[in-house]
Amino acid sequence: MQVVLVDRNNYHLFQPLLYQVATAGLEPEEIAKPARSILRGQKNADFRLVEVTRVDFVGRRLETSDGPISYDYLVLAPGGETNFFGLESMQRYGLGLKDIPDAIAIRNQVLTCFEKAMLETDPEQRRSLLTFIVVGGGPTGVEMAGALSELIRLVLVKDYPRLNIKDVRILLLEATDTLLPALPERLREAAGKTLWRKWVELRFGATVADYDGKQARLKSGEVIPAHTVIWAAGVRAAPLSAALGLKPARQGRIPVERTLQVPGHPEVFIIGDAAYLEQDGDPLPMVAPVAIQMGEAVAQNIMRQLRDRPLVPFRYKDQGTLATIGRNAAVAHVYGLKLSGFPAWVMWLVVHIIQLIGFRNKLFVLINWAWDYFFYERAARLITRD
Amino acid sequence: MQVVLVDRNNYHLFQPLLYQVATAGLEPEEIAKPARSILRGQKNADFRLVEVTRVDFVGRRLETSDGPISYDYLVLAPGGETNFFGLESMQRYGLGLKDIPDAIAIRNQVLTCFEKAMLETDPEQRRSLLTFIVVGGGPTGVEMAGALSELIRLVLVKDYPRLNIKDVRILLLEATDTLLPALPERLREAAGKTLWRKWVELRFGATVADYDGKQARLKSGEVIPAHTVIWAAGVRAAPLSAALGLKPARQGRIPVERTLQVPGHPEVFIIGDAAYLEQDGDPLPMVAPVAIQMGEAVAQNIMRQLRDRPLVPFRYKDQGTLATIGRNAAVAHVYGLKLSGFPAWVMWLVVHIIQLIGFRNKLFVLINWAWDYFFYERAARLITRD
Repeated sequence: MQVVLVDRNNYHLFQPLLYQVATAGLEPEEIAKPARSILRGQKNADFRLVEVTRVDFVGRRLETSDGPISYDYLVLAPGGETNFFGLESMQRYGLGLKDIPDAIAIRNQVLTCFEKAMLETDPEQRRSLLTFIVVGGGPTGVEMAGALSELIRLVLVKDYPRLNIKDVRILLLEATDTLLPALPERLREAAGKTLWRKWVELRFGATVADYDGKQARLKSGEVIPAHTVIWAAGVRAAPLSAALGLKPARQGRIPVERTLQVPGHPEVFIIGDAAYLEQDGDPLPMVAPVAIQMGEAVAQNIMRQLRDRPLVPFRYKDQGTLATIGRNAAVAHVYGLKLSGFPAWVMWLVVHIIQLIGFRNKLFVLINWAWDYFFYERAARLITRD
Repeated sequence: MQVVLVDRNNYHLFQPLLYQVATAGLEPEEIAKPARSILRGQKNADFRLVEVTRVDFVGRRLETSDGPISYDYLVLAPGGETNFFGLESMQRYGLGLKDIPDAIAIRNQVLTCFEKAMLETDPEQRRSLLTFIVVGGGPTGVEMAGALSELIRLVLVKDYPRLNIKDVRILLLEATDTLLPALPERLREAAGKTLWRKWVELRFGATVADYDGKQARLKSGEVIPAHTVIWAAGVRAAPLSAALGLKPARQGRIPVERTLQVPGHPEVFIIGDAAYLEQDGDPLPMVAPVAIQMGEAVAQNIMRQLRDRPLVPFRYKDQGTLATIGRNAAVAHVYGLKLSGFPAWVMWLVVHIIQLIGFRNKLFVLINWAWDYFFYERAARLITRD
């Protein structure tokens, strides 16, 4: 049996820590691992750095930028991308957070705004440079707003002694009336309170209607001058799904059988953000644990198919939700346990260190975290020009 | 007294280790430190992220992208940039190595060539993808060629099990008939031998006449098919020197008095690569130790000027030359001592760790080096798309 991994990036990215690269806490190389180094131990696995353009389901061929690849079994895991919901002005001026260049762009933008603010004599302009809007109250938005607040209030204040911290605003806009909807009421409240304590202005029922790079206009008519908007309000399946010629469901996701097979193509599987599957009446969320469990399930189902055994339907085991809001502060709903504050934060640390691929990445991330924790310092405060 | 540091980058870069970023051994954040964090302890120092456009020597004003800054004393240290000597095709297709984006571009290029080579069926094309030309036999070229050879022969071979290492060529082209001209004969010989042992093809009297991104044509008429040419054959003063309205000497450098003052402008000093000063009949080399010593000398001369004392002429104390060629291999000519092999390599390590700014950077670089040394592994093998 020969396994070919095809990707347009040469590395695997641990997305849950991407917001820490965006806030200068980690370096991109620490949360990414080259695909070839992951596959090194597996003699029957090969890697190709190509872009997939189409799938010929009848001829069982994957069309790529480097010609076709024939397959017996195909597992599609194209992942997700930022969903701007057709809001063109946001697509243009807003900053998404789905890959390394996104994270570096946010880091450059935040630091550049501070540098420009130092040179700005007009107080209105300066405040607008120092206003940071995060859109979306899910885990990404909450973690981003918390990390941004700590970057500014614990680290950057030391870099900019002439900065008036009262000029800084961080807003977290959420369209519904709740943060972190996957969590129980008590933890949602705790998360909200912690964000307030970190000077993040929480705004519920707030939807951005338009953004021109200088001002965000809300649906309510309110206008907020801000040079930076970070968009964490939605994901959708990567555009590959469109090239498959299969009819997508919500968010561009492709409906799959319970066995994760594509209907009518038992040798093709879809996993991760791009797969649309309902469980207990709700679509499975587009999060890493679902994707990881699907990957394991498909591997086993392909083994079963090879041995002519019946496939087993996939069932997502929700192990809980974790979100960190800053030092000593997190919320965790894990195996029925509801934790907030320091214990949740410790659990968050442990879980994320364990999940990072490679001992070296674990070590470097741990050192960086310890550094930040004890010295209130983030080293990656570089503005990298192109 | 108020000191304003003006730079178009927000960080100080330790250039001597840039080639290790280019060969995936270090991460850019480890050899750069934010200017504001360096200046944090100094209450009378301020930083501005601006681009200098012109100097009004009569009005004593620095013109910048953010308006003018008046000065009593001005120290110009614009540094150097890659000198392609008017070879337009090289400027277009060759890769320089003077700043972080340069280093990342080389890293991306080398790794991408390997990925493409794995997909290439034509053997000529494949060999051309795996041929890497380094131009220039100074310290940068020698260190680059050595590090590239070790990256490929010790690390990448494990990533590409189907790679035929005989398809890989690394050439080091030098126009004169000697490497590392600053070193004594014996050490030059040792450096050359070490490079040969690392499978680097040394070519003396070799000058590139033209390069189209696929083939390098030498002055001799010889044509070498190669997808990658790294240009380490020259530096010149940064273009700011041209904007000063002062008549430059060789390599765009501005002639200064022995006190490092600009003739006719006793309140203006030029230091580093951009300053042209002869000592014992030769121009001072464009290297970091000269720049560092000039910086210290100018600081003291300004203090003397403020106290109405006579200025002291600058004299460069050459502490020697160090160049590493790979693990356990370096050449060192320091304080009259001539070392090669392991002792020189240890000295190189110690000197470079000491010179890195900041304990954190020292620690991270040390861990990375230890990792590479013991596990033959370089973690930063990422191809980062824009």
